[in-house]
Amino acid sequence: MAKTVGEFLFDTLKEEGITEIFGVPGDFNFSLLDTLEDYEGIDLIDNRNELNAGYAADGYAQVKGIAAMITTFGVGELSASNAVAGAYSENIPVIHIAGSPDLETQESGENVHHTLMDGNFEVFRHMYEHITAYAVKVTKDNAGFEIPKAVRIAKEKKKPVYIDIPIDQVTEPVGEMETSESEEKSDDKNLESALAHAKERMKGDTVMLVDFNTLRYGLEPEVQSLAEALNVPVAQMMQGKGGFNEQHPQYIGMYGGAFGDSEVQKIVEEANCIIAVGMLWSDFNLAKYTADLDTGKMIIIHPHSVEVAGEKYDGIQATDALEALQKSGYRREGEVETLPSIYDDIAGGPEEEIAAESYYPRFQRMLEKDDILVVDTGTLSYGMSQVKLPEGATFVSHGAWQSIGYGTPAALGASAAADRRVLLFIGEGAFQFTAQELSTIIDKGYQPIIFLLNNQGYTIERYLNTERPYADYNDVPKWDYMTLIDGFSAAGEVFKASVRTNGELDEAIEKAESFDGVSFIELVVTDPMDAPLYLHKLREYAKDD
Amino acid sequence: MAKTVGEFLFDTLKEEGITEIFGVPGDFNFSLLDTLEDYEGIDLIDNRNELNAGYAADGYAQVKGIAAMITTFGVGELSASNAVAGAYSENIPVIHIAGSPDLETQESGENVHHTLMDGNFEVFRHMYEHITAYAVKVTKDNAGFEIPKAVRIAKEKKKPVYIDIPIDQVTEPVGEMETSESEEKSDDKNLESALAHAKERMKGDTVMLVDFNTLRYGLEPEVQSLAEALNVPVAQMMQGKGGFNEQHPQYIGMYGGAFGDSEVQKIVEEANCIIAVGMLWSDFNLAKYTADLDTGKMIIIHPHSVEVAGEKYDGIQATDALEALQKSGYRREGEVETLPSIYDDIAGGPEEEIAAESYYPRFQRMLEKDDILVVDTGTLSYGMSQVKLPEGATFVSHGAWQSIGYGTPAALGASAAADRRVLLFIGEGAFQFTAQELSTIIDKGYQPIIFLLNNQGYTIERYLNTERPYADYNDVPKWDYMTLIDGFSAAGEVFKASVRTNGELDEAIEKAESFDGVSFIELVVTDPMDAPLYLHKLREYAKDD
Repeated sequence: MAKTVGEFLFDTLKEEGITEIFGVPGDFNFSLLDTLEDYEGIDLIDNRNELNAGYAADGYAQVKGIAAMITTFGVGELSASNAVAGAYSENIPVIHIAGSPDLETQESGENVHHTLMDGNFEVFRHMYEHITAYAVKVTKDNAGFEIPKAVRIAKEKKKPVYIDIPIDQVTEPVGEMETSESEEKSDDKNLESALAHAKERMKGDTVMLVDFNTLRYGLEPEVQSLAEALNVPVAQMMQGKGGFNEQHPQYIGMYGGAFGDSEVQKIVEEANCIIAVGMLWSDFNLAKYTADLDTGKMIIIHPHSVEVAGEKYDGIQATDALEALQKSGYRREGEVETLPSIYDDIAGGPEEEIAAESYYPRFQRMLEKDDILVVDTGTLSYGMSQVKLPEGATFVSHGAWQSIGYGTPAALGASAAADRRVLLFIGEGAFQFTAQELSTIIDKGYQPIIFLLNNQGYTIERYLNTERPYADYNDVPKWDYMTLIDGFSAAGEVFKASVRTNGELDEAIEKAESFDGVSFIELVVTDPMDAPLYLHKLREYAKDD
Repeated sequence: MAKTVGEFLFDTLKEEGITEIFGVPGDFNFSLLDTLEDYEGIDLIDNRNELNAGYAADGYAQVKGIAAMITTFGVGELSASNAVAGAYSENIPVIHIAGSPDLETQESGENVHHTLMDGNFEVFRHMYEHITAYAVKVTKDNAGFEIPKAVRIAKEKKKPVYIDIPIDQVTEPVGEMETSESEEKSDDKNLESALAHAKERMKGDTVMLVDFNTLRYGLEPEVQSLAEALNVPVAQMMQGKGGFNEQHPQYIGMYGGAFGDSEVQKIVEEANCIIAVGMLWSDFNLAKYTADLDTGKMIIIHPHSVEVAGEKYDGIQATDALEALQKSGYRREGEVETLPSIYDDIAGGPEEEIAAESYYPRFQRMLEKDDILVVDTGTLSYGMSQVKLPEGATFVSHGAWQSIGYGTPAALGASAAADRRVLLFIGEGAFQFTAQELSTIIDKGYQPIIFLLNNQGYTIERYLNTERPYADYNDVPKWDYMTLIDGFSAAGEVFKASVRTNGELDEAIEKAESFDGVSFIELVVTDPMDAPLYLHKLREYAKDD
């Protein structure tokens, strides 16, 4: 029997290491899901809605490198658009497969359900062209080359792509198959020029800044080799967290402009030369542009180019640049002085109420090698950025897109991606956006430890709207989380605890660590303005601004 | 003090009768929400996420005629895109207001959060151009005419529109204000020609078919007057339900092609002339195209045109056409014979397990004058279509777009729109998509009666995928709904009941009707293929197809 379009699609995804696909059924993707049900080696993880499927795919890709999801035409695919745009913003390759009506119906222009009732079957694909690197309608005739092409683009550009497959095309034999080969090579001459220029700049105190695309392009090993060869202090940017082993003797901490550690700030900003890998000039990363980084003394390694003192050298692969710099001849003298981290010491007595100063150090203390931390947007994303991670940890977050509610589905995705411990840190405002995905986590038997920070509303918004922190719209309805969890967990056991003191938190963490199932710890904080130091500084700055 | 852009916006919306706006806060809509908080006469109903806000706005508009919602840039607005596309598909005017970064930032092209990190601030508006009738960026200079223009387009076209307002523009004084006048008048000559042609066709047995745009364009009074003047039997199409008083002596029932009542089918299809008002030729409406309607004997009244025996007359307003036809001289002889409706008689003894045959008649029996029924997509949308409504009832549903999960947020919207009883009918698969919005309903003190049909998964999908009704992907995680509701209701009392027999259902309905708060009745059906007759017929047809 000839291979069908659906089988070929799943073969292509399996070759990339995808063993789970997220999605939601709908009558235009039945043939995709039926093919998948019969297919060996990839399981469907069915989500509670499509936005959650998209977030789960994103979380999966942040751990495993790439992910896929299946939605249905119109209603399904549009619900996922926020997550797909997020993957675009965050440089994450997610293959979005949307099942559409059969080709004959599409050509007839009939008013079938899930359309705009205007006979137009292209409108959703056109919308997706704005938020993906490639959007294509696949048929039996073009599947053989369009599917590999879409996957290659996703991998190379680290962006989502969109594949529309009419329901009748999935079971058709696939036409001629072509592998889609990339030609990503460095331009030797440009590399040589860049290196020569870089050598001139590498003098005196040189530091390395590890950022965003280090993670997205998997450059961690090369970055570490370079750091060791040069013997320089290494700091991470906010969106680069997880790109460098924070237990490494050369690691000095997070660089966060005026809001982060002032010692790190001084070392970075006063260095004679800064080698920045995978740099992203964003507001979050640059701490509301308080980061004082002089491009005149920077060597910036982008995925496909290098910038030296503001001069750009194109056509250079990051791995080649990182390797070349190792042979620059520069090596800093003396040992790097390790700096203390803000949450190294446990604060707050057992009877005292929990607060940012007491729970962040406890989070740091409980972390283990190879943990996966999933951190939602909100005060926690600022606080957790300052927690020192163990070796091998993965930090799953969204510093660019910052869509609140991302965390719970992303924790599902991260849990599916690897047999490692997953910890989710999420505020209660964020949790309410996508709470139902917790039931999928329980239903599938994953065992993350979930920390729900119940701080009486959208605290992050209270910080950002400096004039009206107590606006009504920053309140959220009161939920009884301990009861709610029982409602979601008809299919499995959950360890749950609601804690108000440091002692209760310590006890809950201990129990969660030995529990065989999902753990859900609610941290009830009575001060709606409870927040990490980083955010206090940001707010003071914003007020004066 | 001069009026600000924000105040002018809310003045314009208030003039349309909008007294509640749905939405979710985000740091790019603070100025909108702050202005609204200070504004008299419109309240913010804050939703649990933006998709839910969009569905709520849609439900509100189906009751009140128009609705508005506020989201934030990128992350917020895209989450709502499924609901907005739904409003487009369903001809519902929803004003989507998205708060965006300040103009200076937009012009700078900086990589602020919630962007694609490419300096492009137009991308989301461009996406919205595909699913709205008008998408515009409003500034202090153009707000005075663009805001009224957008609202006028929404009202005239019965479509969603999109207004992007940079955060700094909201508090600026609004520039020159212009009212946006419509010029919707009928072409007298075309109307005369259409009427002359129509007169020729109106002979023998004439019937009226009430459909989709009767509801959307508020033509119910004119339709009833015409029906009475002509003394003809009146049937409703699936998407027209609610467009004609089902207690009217001339009402004969729902027309659903081969799947609906066969007596109604006969009367409609064998008539000499069919006057169809607000007709939509869609797959749902036409019962998978089993509807046998001969356009050669039809007079179709569209919102802005008339078709007589396939000949189109443009530039005719529906109200004018309906009025003109009253003076056609035609009047059918004799009284219209009323037909029994499938769920008129209570079936199933008190000890027997509930099933479609027993719960639909009970739903019909409990209905009261002026009830608002919100019906989600699934088996219930087929069953409820056959339930005979009391006078003044409003039927809120989505026959074209059919996005599962629409119901709970739409019930919130309907509850906010009118001080009338709201009943929600939703399957448990659908409920899981948007469950959190129940907490908003409780938190705001609305008191709908919610019927959750727990039929062990996506039963509608089991019906549509005739080859694999028991595919794994049609299962959903088991929730303990009675417990879950307690989790959501920390802010209010809920009457809850889980029923398995007809007697239990009767008792629960009685209690719910006298309860002062939200009622939540779970109908536990053990047969995953439990469904109304309409759907059984549809499935038999699809199998043979």
